[in-house]
Amino acid sequence: MIEKNISKIQTWLKKNNIDLAYFHNPTTISYITSFHSDPHERIMALFIPQVGEPFLFVPALEIETAKNSNWNYSVFGYFDEENPFEKIATILKKYPKLNQCAIEKDVLPVGRMENLKFFFPQLNFDYDITPKIQEMKLYKSKFEKNILLEAGKLADIAFEIGFSAIKENISEQEIVAIIETEMKKRGVKKMSFDTLVLTGAHAADPHGEPTSQNLVKNNELILFDLGCMWKGYASDATRMASFKEPTDRDKKIFDIVLEAQLRAQNAIKPGITAGELDAIARDYITKKGYGEYFIHRLGHGIGQSCHEYPSIVKNNDLIIKEGMCFSIEPGIYIPNEVGVRVEDCVYVESNGSTPFTTLPKDLHIIK
Amino acid sequence: MIEKNISKIQTWLKKNNIDLAYFHNPTTISYITSFHSDPHERIMALFIPQVGEPFLFVPALEIETAKNSNWNYSVFGYFDEENPFEKIATILKKYPKLNQCAIEKDVLPVGRMENLKFFFPQLNFDYDITPKIQEMKLYKSKFEKNILLEAGKLADIAFEIGFSAIKENISEQEIVAIIETEMKKRGVKKMSFDTLVLTGAHAADPHGEPTSQNLVKNNELILFDLGCMWKGYASDATRMASFKEPTDRDKKIFDIVLEAQLRAQNAIKPGITAGELDAIARDYITKKGYGEYFIHRLGHGIGQSCHEYPSIVKNNDLIIKEGMCFSIEPGIYIPNEVGVRVEDCVYVESNGSTPFTTLPKDLHIIK
Repeated sequence: MIEKNISKIQTWLKKNNIDLAYFHNPTTISYITSFHSDPHERIMALFIPQVGEPFLFVPALEIETAKNSNWNYSVFGYFDEENPFEKIATILKKYPKLNQCAIEKDVLPVGRMENLKFFFPQLNFDYDITPKIQEMKLYKSKFEKNILLEAGKLADIAFEIGFSAIKENISEQEIVAIIETEMKKRGVKKMSFDTLVLTGAHAADPHGEPTSQNLVKNNELILFDLGCMWKGYASDATRMASFKEPTDRDKKIFDIVLEAQLRAQNAIKPGITAGELDAIARDYITKKGYGEYFIHRLGHGIGQSCHEYPSIVKNNDLIIKEGMCFSIEPGIYIPNEVGVRVEDCVYVESNGSTPFTTLPKDLHIIK
Repeated sequence: MIEKNISKIQTWLKKNNIDLAYFHNPTTISYITSFHSDPHERIMALFIPQVGEPFLFVPALEIETAKNSNWNYSVFGYFDEENPFEKIATILKKYPKLNQCAIEKDVLPVGRMENLKFFFPQLNFDYDITPKIQEMKLYKSKFEKNILLEAGKLADIAFEIGFSAIKENISEQEIVAIIETEMKKRGVKKMSFDTLVLTGAHAADPHGEPTSQNLVKNNELILFDLGCMWKGYASDATRMASFKEPTDRDKKIFDIVLEAQLRAQNAIKPGITAGELDAIARDYITKKGYGEYFIHRLGHGIGQSCHEYPSIVKNNDLIIKEGMCFSIEPGIYIPNEVGVRVEDCVYVESNGSTPFTTLPKDLHIIK
């Protein structure tokens, strides 16, 4: 796998006449090398030359772990008091003729590029390797699909735990704590993102944070948006519950969002475009009179990162193909009133799609 | 506060003859504007011109929240299907004469700079505003100090909860789950970072991740490194426990690390340099024969971020002054054998320092 990744990148470098690729993103580095680490503000980098041996460059703290990983090439390190870019330049100078260096322009900070250029002035950074990496990550293997299915199953369990915790006057944050504790007990080291449990009007803020002040109240909707990291892959899904019977208005809005979600999800198949999927959900919500309250794209790619390429967004002509994985998550958010979202992530099959989460998407009414 | 921040930045822009500042880091934006949001991969930006009104630029999702925040200037937004940089350029074109734009070179990705330049070609990005922001954040006010003390008190409580959870064969991850659940119940929305509970030799990996396989065993040390986010500020501290009596070797190593920590912490006062503090701890550990196993800097700044400027590292000539806040955290890590770290974060006073965590740093022996 590691060999194959390196070979794909070296082929791309050769084709584009680029001497070197510099990877900065810990997720990309983990994807290519199988070595996973979060260096925080320290420097971690992977260099793959068009010709010659690639190498990992990590903080001194991580050298042992990197050497004990499945990465069988060189690992160099630096101490906190050293200038990492000076050390990188020294290593690079042993390679013949390096001029063009492709970088991840979507994540590499300007300062880091300039620091390396200071110590290795002949390097140019005109090329962006982001599209190549996006393309490599875009099509998931059966192996990856199976892990994503496992991660989705854990999200289903998390919803069930959350639903069971619902009772009058329990706070959003208490429900989050119960879900995350129970998932940790089941071996989930990390959620994909901060679990969202939002009650009533609070769910109208699509990025609202659960609080200990917002409590479950009679006849109010509760939005659950969550996912679990599992073997390096993320799940992400949204389900809605109601404490006691929902109001007619809330039920109506929920039904519109669910129908929009189902229409888009059922339309997935190779050949349709990302923009067409967005339009299916958006047109339905608009026809029902709530278009102005669906204020985000329909979905995002998922894999090792919870949000990755591609974007399922209006006017995106990207043609959907087998092996792509992304979310379908329409929503209606009426400020200070109500917020509803329904979401599954799927794997595109030759004739449709397989969702990673399978818990029913109906409104889960707690009597 | 917001007015004061803008004024400081505009003064700096004027002094350096720069027309505009572009802020990219959500933490910086929160520091300047009091509007806090994590836009994930979407674009969020703050623009402060040398002359004229600053503005926030946020995803459509966040417009309502931004407008309802304490930020009393303009808020612009964009929908997922729009090109955010095209919109930003349109707004900027209403300002007279913009050429030099200072950026946060430590965090702004190359691609975002190039995207803005594409739509606004006359902008140059030669200047880095990072040092100015670091300087502004470096000296904490009494108001900030009090929040940091509150965050530290919560970390002390978290340690006590963790110590109480220790029993034979409980896993690292179970202890983490207990700590984080209890802290959530106490209103802590987020830990400062993934809580570390590492037993025995596992603690020798300074970035090891707690697992459900590693269990508490007789006569082994347990490392706790944790912190709580509180009112936008972080705490961060490390304490060590032992299940039953430690071995003589482990006790000896613990005593060396604790003594190194105390010597450095007691030496803090205005006038000493960051490098001198590092040397005090490092020289002591080296004298005791373990210098090669202290593989990281002595400490890092703390505030709204858990790791920020300054770096308490070898050869850093930065002079410590009243109001600075940073960690003192020497460690000894012998691969596959044992890992020990002891850490407090402090506020520098006119004649010494005040630690944010006050739980005793002795080895906490569980009988």
